[in-house]
Amino acid sequence: MPDAKHPAVQQALEEARDAAVARLVSFLSIPSVSTDPAYGVEVRRGAAWVAQRLEALGFDTETVSSGGGHPVVLGRNAEAGAEKPTVLFYGHYDVQPPDPLELWTSPPFEPAVRPSQTAGDGDAVYARGASDDKGQVACFLEALQGFRDAGVPLPVNVKVLIEGEEECGSRTLPAFLQERGKDLSADVAVVSDTAMWDARTPTLTYGLRGLVYFDLKLHGPDRDLHSGVYGGTLANPATVLARVLGKLFDEDRRIAIPGFYDNVAPLDPAEREEWAALPFTDEGFVGAVGGTASGEAGFSTLERRWARPACDVNGLYGGYMGEGAKTVLPSFAGAKVSFRIPGNMEARRVAALFTEWLEQQEVDGCRWDLENHGEADPVLVRRDSAEIAAAVAACEAIAGVRPALVRSGATIPVIADFKETLGMDTLLLGFGLNADDIHSPDEHFGLDRFHLGARVHAELLGRLAEG
Amino acid sequence: MPDAKHPAVQQALEEARDAAVARLVSFLSIPSVSTDPAYGVEVRRGAAWVAQRLEALGFDTETVSSGGGHPVVLGRNAEAGAEKPTVLFYGHYDVQPPDPLELWTSPPFEPAVRPSQTAGDGDAVYARGASDDKGQVACFLEALQGFRDAGVPLPVNVKVLIEGEEECGSRTLPAFLQERGKDLSADVAVVSDTAMWDARTPTLTYGLRGLVYFDLKLHGPDRDLHSGVYGGTLANPATVLARVLGKLFDEDRRIAIPGFYDNVAPLDPAEREEWAALPFTDEGFVGAVGGTASGEAGFSTLERRWARPACDVNGLYGGYMGEGAKTVLPSFAGAKVSFRIPGNMEARRVAALFTEWLEQQEVDGCRWDLENHGEADPVLVRRDSAEIAAAVAACEAIAGVRPALVRSGATIPVIADFKETLGMDTLLLGFGLNADDIHSPDEHFGLDRFHLGARVHAELLGRLAEG
Repeated sequence: MPDAKHPAVQQALEEARDAAVARLVSFLSIPSVSTDPAYGVEVRRGAAWVAQRLEALGFDTETVSSGGGHPVVLGRNAEAGAEKPTVLFYGHYDVQPPDPLELWTSPPFEPAVRPSQTAGDGDAVYARGASDDKGQVACFLEALQGFRDAGVPLPVNVKVLIEGEEECGSRTLPAFLQERGKDLSADVAVVSDTAMWDARTPTLTYGLRGLVYFDLKLHGPDRDLHSGVYGGTLANPATVLARVLGKLFDEDRRIAIPGFYDNVAPLDPAEREEWAALPFTDEGFVGAVGGTASGEAGFSTLERRWARPACDVNGLYGGYMGEGAKTVLPSFAGAKVSFRIPGNMEARRVAALFTEWLEQQEVDGCRWDLENHGEADPVLVRRDSAEIAAAVAACEAIAGVRPALVRSGATIPVIADFKETLGMDTLLLGFGLNADDIHSPDEHFGLDRFHLGARVHAELLGRLAEG
Repeated sequence: MPDAKHPAVQQALEEARDAAVARLVSFLSIPSVSTDPAYGVEVRRGAAWVAQRLEALGFDTETVSSGGGHPVVLGRNAEAGAEKPTVLFYGHYDVQPPDPLELWTSPPFEPAVRPSQTAGDGDAVYARGASDDKGQVACFLEALQGFRDAGVPLPVNVKVLIEGEEECGSRTLPAFLQERGKDLSADVAVVSDTAMWDARTPTLTYGLRGLVYFDLKLHGPDRDLHSGVYGGTLANPATVLARVLGKLFDEDRRIAIPGFYDNVAPLDPAEREEWAALPFTDEGFVGAVGGTASGEAGFSTLERRWARPACDVNGLYGGYMGEGAKTVLPSFAGAKVSFRIPGNMEARRVAALFTEWLEQQEVDGCRWDLENHGEADPVLVRRDSAEIAAAVAACEAIAGVRPALVRSGATIPVIADFKETLGMDTLLLGFGLNADDIHSPDEHFGLDRFHLGARVHAELLGRLAEG
């Protein structure tokens, strides 16, 4: 295994563990929920925290809000000099809504450190955003802090782009990338928003699924009606919505929209073999969350997760949702419906197919109100680049093990845009775990992984300097 | 047209209009929502109001709570003497939940009098329960008040049964009727909880649909999950629920449960002709609420409403229901589903068929949690009885027009039990209107109809005394 490039920086990081945790707790205390307009002011506080932090690390910053979106924070440090490569680090300071609040052991925005519920994880910090993505952004910020504490100049030029709309589909970021492309150009992007294969194995992710997310609202009568007086005489939008959603899936659990699977790339047999050899069981994955493996026929669970499309109803609402009974024929009903799409599929095409399919359904005089909450293309990057080699070496130097190379079923909307708009590949180097309960109550992040992330990022900067 | 039997009572009612409205307002101020446990204390206040009012009218009262249910108020006045007939008046003091609150023009439990939004209706009182059923119960109580104010003894013996669980399916009342049958026995029951054909035409209802109401909750994984990490690998209960509900209806808008229609009586051709001759248009009925006529093929809107079964999704819930997007794979999802069943169908059989059908559906490892929120059999009574003749004459004497004889699509759970347990037919004499927005925001009751109801009830008591 290789040695660390900057032992003094590694030493400084080791000594600053407590200070690093204190900084993370301060970041996690801000309820920067981007998907709910009620948190607007808190999202701005999140951006301000990041800008101040970058300034303290010797960066020039800009906080830019465009197109009515939540602000992007941009930081630049060119102390390495023009002959050195430039690295763009991307992350997000926004978080998912914390509900259902009553299922949290400690309040989601009062970060608490206690033994992790994840085996082999030591102590963890519990808070919304602990793992997705504030904790992982903080890994990189602490790497920068390590250089500063050790009095070592940064070995590469660093640009930092921390956005506030990842959890609602990065709506305004693509236009920002196009407009500010020159200021964002770099040799490689580095992102920490993915998971490790297990708590001991640093992991590089070379594929992500894309996302298309709709809110479908079906409107019927202009007010709620008595279901005895009106039942059977006019279309009930909740009934019609259920009938339409029911047709979205066939008996083989495939998505029944004509043409939907046309662009799904068949799996490479070599990749299929590699995945089959991974230490993965259905029982350990879906069994661990009380579920039963189920999905598209003809594929393993890992294949369905990483390389096959999925359609999920993320929410249902309408009519009487309280305790007990109310005999109402509701004025409207709605569903949140999203698609995860693997390499080769195009988000725009999926959105168009779905919209067209919905509009072809018989809705008995009801009216659709469709809201597109975001589209993101999938990502597949080369596994044989110099940057991947540098990242593998950095992981080996710090963790003492070879990192895992995997795909992910999740989405980071901006990665496809980095390639398309800025012509740049991305290193996805993550320190989360699937057991971190991101998007769920009791989200947490193991503090050993937090420190590992900081040390690997510092080492990676040293190695990319040689690129 | 016949003359009124007790002109002095009619005169007293005419003079007490303002006092009657004041009493009604006091009744409507109590938020006696029976379907939501949060209102438990207010439901008891509703019962206490009724008991006090009956005592002020010279009745002995009992307030009885059994089987964990909301209290029943029982009143008895035997001043007419053993040789006179006995009338049992039934109504309910409980009301539907008021939500969505933001759509009310004035708060639902702060009754307001203003011009009615219903054409030809004069002033109306706006409040939850104004028409269903407190206002209609108050019509009868004011009829009793009229005899008292005029110093005229009641011409028949009167029993009054006002319950607090009608809006949640009258769960404990059937057992109460069996237990207390002797105390409740009467020659005929009178109920005011139905609608008039129009604002000028008193109406007798000879048929009601029954009701079966379920809350279906489908449980999947033991926590909410990230839909990117897990999407496509295990059953999503919201997706599965939609798939199952979608199968509940066929392309002809019929309920697709095998055997469901076996016991539906075919329509009598004479009745069908009578209904076709009624001044009714789809545009005037469903068009007036912004809907489009739709339903089981082969039947008119009025036939579907009065004599055909209907199945409605009354509510959908689960996963993320807030603003914007959350990429969650929910731990559970639910639906409120109810059936309206016409004469001849049996509620218990429908509940069993539905439960069996649900349990036969493939749910990919998810688990049902089914809650039965109430069963009520349908009602069809004779149109040629002495009691119907008395009620027709009472309407003619007071309103000067022949009353309409109709069916209703709605349900009053207890009427079937009156026949089955107490061997008693029921006169359904209602003063509501379909335009009263019962179960909806801005429920209201025209004050002219309130006074008409009081006067017709007083006259009916006089005419039943001759029976």
